[in-house]
Amino acid sequence: MSKYFNISIIGSGNVAWHLSRALENAGHTIHEVFSRKHSNAKKLTRKLYSATAQGHMDFSKSKAEIFIMAVPDNAIEKIASKIKLPPDAIIVHTSGSIPINMLKGSFSNTGVFYPLQTFSKLSEINFGEVPILIEAKDKKTENRLSQLAKSLSKAVHRVNSEDRKGLHIAAVFACNFTNHMMAISGWLLNKQKLDFNLLKPLIIETINKSLDIGPDNAQTGPALRGDLQTLDHHMDYLKFDKSLQEIYRVISQHIIDHSGS
Amino acid sequence: MSKYFNISIIGSGNVAWHLSRALENAGHTIHEVFSRKHSNAKKLTRKLYSATAQGHMDFSKSKAEIFIMAVPDNAIEKIASKIKLPPDAIIVHTSGSIPINMLKGSFSNTGVFYPLQTFSKLSEINFGEVPILIEAKDKKTENRLSQLAKSLSKAVHRVNSEDRKGLHIAAVFACNFTNHMMAISGWLLNKQKLDFNLLKPLIIETINKSLDIGPDNAQTGPALRGDLQTLDHHMDYLKFDKSLQEIYRVISQHIIDHSGS
Repeated sequence: MSKYFNISIIGSGNVAWHLSRALENAGHTIHEVFSRKHSNAKKLTRKLYSATAQGHMDFSKSKAEIFIMAVPDNAIEKIASKIKLPPDAIIVHTSGSIPINMLKGSFSNTGVFYPLQTFSKLSEINFGEVPILIEAKDKKTENRLSQLAKSLSKAVHRVNSEDRKGLHIAAVFACNFTNHMMAISGWLLNKQKLDFNLLKPLIIETINKSLDIGPDNAQTGPALRGDLQTLDHHMDYLKFDKSLQEIYRVISQHIIDHSGS
Repeated sequence: MSKYFNISIIGSGNVAWHLSRALENAGHTIHEVFSRKHSNAKKLTRKLYSATAQGHMDFSKSKAEIFIMAVPDNAIEKIASKIKLPPDAIIVHTSGSIPINMLKGSFSNTGVFYPLQTFSKLSEINFGEVPILIEAKDKKTENRLSQLAKSLSKAVHRVNSEDRKGLHIAAVFACNFTNHMMAISGWLLNKQKLDFNLLKPLIIETINKSLDIGPDNAQTGPALRGDLQTLDHHMDYLKFDKSLQEIYRVISQHIIDHSGS
């Protein structure tokens, strides 16, 4: 049986937008929204059923029982230090890289509620498919966060701060670095007056294959084949930019060293 | 109006399989298939309407007018040197990284017919969406290759050998290197006893966003934010593997140096 929670949101960025609307759609009630920029809190409350934009961080009279901080990583500690909660309330942050211990101070029940997805205002996210990683200081809080997470997503995992850090680094490789490889690719094409769109079908098929059979089995290309002549040609082509040469060299070497492993 | 060509295929790998069947579906006739391993040529002909597996490279009596070499890059020169063609026939290779001049010898009409896609036996490819890059030594050959390519795909481009080399390097970054970033990500998750599947929704959303708004606009993460503290933590986490540290360092530095560019 579902339990519906009373929730307040601290923050008004992309995570706050997507999360608060998904929470309402799952039947929970959003009471207050706080944002350092009050007009942003107001903007968000207009998209919600009955939430109020609150101009201060004293929530001691709030009806909410769970407070979700969806603020930038480097603001978590500072904002947390100013928040006043009702007795027994739970406070969580939503960050992949910040340990639970950053929520210090007078809170009795702290946790992490990390939706492992990238959010932007423009694109809708099906929250049911988004892995939610939870962590809590005590079992009772963990159970409540688990209930809350399961009301949103089929993929709820208990992951502690140390493992979440490893996961975050893995995500940097799989997302930020893959994106940067595509950015470099686009610059190289531009230089040749060719359109990045040319590569899109190949990129889509490559990623699909990689996700389908696993990246270890999906690799192709000159480094995997140990085709040193082509690698030399490519290094020579890239000599106009030493940093691109270095990136090409270290990744190719790593592919060579780990092929067949 | 469509012109249907008489074609023979040299090679029996993934490109040969997908290409010969797409050519038949577009109305062309495949006459002979040659493979260094005769049994592979036979296997492919069984999937085609009326092609014969030929055990030698003397095609001087063939009815084909276009000969398509779909063989590994490093075999192109050697195989080409042994092929005998009928007068006026066209010979092309299908490689992204080999210049047209590799087709030396007694051929009068040479070209390149490069389908910019990754092929595997298991997954069907919609050839209509695959960019085909053509190049030819003379205008008449180019026109015929263009006709042939347009019968298969909406995306036909004339690209010379030098530009094709740049494109190939761009593809190494956008495909081989992105795949390797995902491989590393999977190893890091394994180390933490976490499942690569956890990251799939995030990877899919990241790639979609990157292809949608362009990788330059889609970047996120600690390097882009100039979050040196997180970068330090990540470098520290990766100290068990110097080569991963180096990859993390050079790519992060490159993101920092090119953010906002």
